[in-house]
Amino acid sequence: MLREKTKNKSVLVVGAGLVGTLEACFMAKRGYQVHLYEYRPDIRTLEHVPGRSINLAMSLRGRTGLKAIGVEDKVIRDHGIPMYGRMIHNTDGSTRPIPYNKDGKCIYSVGRRFVNEVLLTKAEEYPNLNIHFTHKLTTCRLDKGEATFVNTVSGEQVTRRADLVIGCDGAYSNVRKSMMRQPFFNYTQNYIPHGYMELCIPPTPEGGFAMPANYLHIWPRGQFMMIALPNQDCSWTVTLFMPFPAFEGLSTPELLLSYFKTHYPDAIPLIGREKLIKDFFANEALPMIYVKCSPYHVGSTGLLMGDAAHAMVPFYGQGMNCGMEDCVVLDELLDQYKDDFATVLPAYSAKRNPDAEAIVDLALYNYIEMRDLVNSRAFLLRRKFDDLLSTIMPKYWLPLYTMVTFTRTPYHKCISRKKWQDRVVKHILSVVGMAGVAAGVFLAKSDPLHVLSCSHLSQLPALLSRTWVAATSLSITRK
Amino acid sequence: MLREKTKNKSVLVVGAGLVGTLEACFMAKRGYQVHLYEYRPDIRTLEHVPGRSINLAMSLRGRTGLKAIGVEDKVIRDHGIPMYGRMIHNTDGSTRPIPYNKDGKCIYSVGRRFVNEVLLTKAEEYPNLNIHFTHKLTTCRLDKGEATFVNTVSGEQVTRRADLVIGCDGAYSNVRKSMMRQPFFNYTQNYIPHGYMELCIPPTPEGGFAMPANYLHIWPRGQFMMIALPNQDCSWTVTLFMPFPAFEGLSTPELLLSYFKTHYPDAIPLIGREKLIKDFFANEALPMIYVKCSPYHVGSTGLLMGDAAHAMVPFYGQGMNCGMEDCVVLDELLDQYKDDFATVLPAYSAKRNPDAEAIVDLALYNYIEMRDLVNSRAFLLRRKFDDLLSTIMPKYWLPLYTMVTFTRTPYHKCISRKKWQDRVVKHILSVVGMAGVAAGVFLAKSDPLHVLSCSHLSQLPALLSRTWVAATSLSITRK
Repeated sequence: MLREKTKNKSVLVVGAGLVGTLEACFMAKRGYQVHLYEYRPDIRTLEHVPGRSINLAMSLRGRTGLKAIGVEDKVIRDHGIPMYGRMIHNTDGSTRPIPYNKDGKCIYSVGRRFVNEVLLTKAEEYPNLNIHFTHKLTTCRLDKGEATFVNTVSGEQVTRRADLVIGCDGAYSNVRKSMMRQPFFNYTQNYIPHGYMELCIPPTPEGGFAMPANYLHIWPRGQFMMIALPNQDCSWTVTLFMPFPAFEGLSTPELLLSYFKTHYPDAIPLIGREKLIKDFFANEALPMIYVKCSPYHVGSTGLLMGDAAHAMVPFYGQGMNCGMEDCVVLDELLDQYKDDFATVLPAYSAKRNPDAEAIVDLALYNYIEMRDLVNSRAFLLRRKFDDLLSTIMPKYWLPLYTMVTFTRTPYHKCISRKKWQDRVVKHILSVVGMAGVAAGVFLAKSDPLHVLSCSHLSQLPALLSRTWVAATSLSITRK
Repeated sequence: MLREKTKNKSVLVVGAGLVGTLEACFMAKRGYQVHLYEYRPDIRTLEHVPGRSINLAMSLRGRTGLKAIGVEDKVIRDHGIPMYGRMIHNTDGSTRPIPYNKDGKCIYSVGRRFVNEVLLTKAEEYPNLNIHFTHKLTTCRLDKGEATFVNTVSGEQVTRRADLVIGCDGAYSNVRKSMMRQPFFNYTQNYIPHGYMELCIPPTPEGGFAMPANYLHIWPRGQFMMIALPNQDCSWTVTLFMPFPAFEGLSTPELLLSYFKTHYPDAIPLIGREKLIKDFFANEALPMIYVKCSPYHVGSTGLLMGDAAHAMVPFYGQGMNCGMEDCVVLDELLDQYKDDFATVLPAYSAKRNPDAEAIVDLALYNYIEMRDLVNSRAFLLRRKFDDLLSTIMPKYWLPLYTMVTFTRTPYHKCISRKKWQDRVVKHILSVVGMAGVAAGVFLAKSDPLHVLSCSHLSQLPALLSRTWVAATSLSITRK
């Protein structure tokens, strides 16, 4: 019955990247007449694909999207490399694994190009889905469901109208640009002060991995950071993050090597001294931007999804996952509102915006955690505490990273639950502290050598009662 | 000597509004060859000028700009209507004046069109300044100092290169749009949930003001607000602020009148019942946007000023004042760095951005203060307290509104000083409170009927010492 409703409606998707191609598949599966436009040639025909990072961490939210169109196994089982935790590299060359969670759940390192190719090949299976490569968007009118492209090979101009135009054209979206003068369109774009540069650890001479494969390797160094994700060919994609002026400061091979000797001594032999110098000076540091906007829709005819709607810094590994979950959320709303775009689009904006902005913020926060906290004693203590509590009450206490990565808990709820957890931890620590003071007073009374200040004692009843309230209201205040 | 340096350099200003025309005058005065482009016809030739609010509150920062090019007297002495304070209108129709400050300093209600015309006429006095009306910007390349316009009368296209292109084209700036893809351009635009609508209180039948003229009249009503500024012809421009859905709710003359009877009963006879209905349904509620961005410059060839760089909500009466101060600040930096654009432009971004973002934030904050606080007892108490302290130590204690409106203290310092004042007030109140408790204890000892909790007493020495530190560090920590 749904098919009857959708087969006469057309959907135009701009951008055949990860999110755009997946969304095109979702809409084709629903029965719409789908046209997918992409400014690049078919990447399956290219030797080198220009552009962004070559591997990505896939977790539950992304997998849910892939599963819905039947390509999860192809991506995850046949291709993905499981990573069960972080492997911390210290400056003395020693390493320490930190599992992502106590249940052995993992994320998967996948190649951006591979996933994109799988999706494109899947897209071609739908008879009602047409892909138009080498078509660059020139103008678009989301309020009219209209977009104009120029064929970059023939120079021909094409204007197409559809019942719905979806912009999946990435962080620097041209579709979004057309929304800037739409009344009540709120928009923020911000560059962080750090840049990133991709380097590479090649396979060993024997053709194996040069480091333990099933980890996301991290060299946390406060203001700097380096990470490495494994590739299918046993190489590693290494990403160096630091403030732009720091990149500029490494202006000679000597300065570069000296910097690596100080901060990442174990990485020099892994990358190779000559290769490090060659790659570093052949590459340039790239900027990282985050984008927030609202709403995501224009009337019943225009929509933004993926990075076009909510580009984020890469530190939570959720950019692709969030974008793919966008497709799942839209699909759920199309079910709920029977494919009525006039209802679905505002509902999508209202539902998805708080979650997307929450993960944009979390990604910024993890930027600090990865560089700093991951290495600190307090962070590890809190991890153990979280593990303990989630064993005692697995339904109520999931660590933030677990909620974000291994569940589909709405992102904004992940944040509110984390805040609630922090309050509970604070109260518990207060009680532990107060119990300690009370014990001290008891000892002081029995032993005059223990002299304790009583200045906080008067607060004990209030603190205890607050903690009690917090503890008993677990099930009430938890959002 | 400076003239020798500047006379062979050209400056192109986009937008002949208040800030653009003033900036063109500043640059012409420095000796540059200035071209000022404006998409409208010469407003001096128009019967009605379309667009934004017709009167504005001019204070010191704006006056400093006007003074520098010799038109302050013409605007302020010959035209401006002094406003010495706020006149609060209660729902029972009673009114209460609140002076802006204890020294009788005032702001001036001026007509936007009048000020713009004075500036245009002044601009024509400079032989090295050319004004091009009816020229609409089509594209611009700030990195090349290049802009293309289309003459909206002849249809002719004009491309002009200059040593510096300055975008003064307002909150929806097209020049700024060209900066959006500039790397590291941070940008935020946000609409607030309230809209505004302009109404009018006509002169009395005798041709006089229908309310006391030398006040900014305010009807603060929590979620709603109405204000009125006097015009030269003894009419008042009334602006109604409320959430957009509330505007939509007033869908019939009956609902409108009932709303006014409840919230602004004294305004109905002032506006006139029939005129209120006619004007309300002839007008529409307009949105309010604020804009933050950084940097303001591109290399040594492009710059944003005024609303194009930092549009704000109108609740501090600083939009025009801040924009005109932009011109003063740029002029000071041109002096300091001897007209070397490559040095001046980055220095301008670095100096002006924190101040502009501070006043954008303050204007948002005042939106709440005007609707709410102005009517509350705590607000009035704090005002008296501020007045007292600024009498005792006039160099160190100026109320926030006074700093913003009657001094050129950099806006960001206005905020940091206000925060410092708030901390001091909090400490003083603590001491006063503690002294009260101590007095109570003393009384309790002499009179057993006074039973007081001693739970806070242990904190008294610490509080007293903190306050002492705060008081003695006045001259050290004050920023």
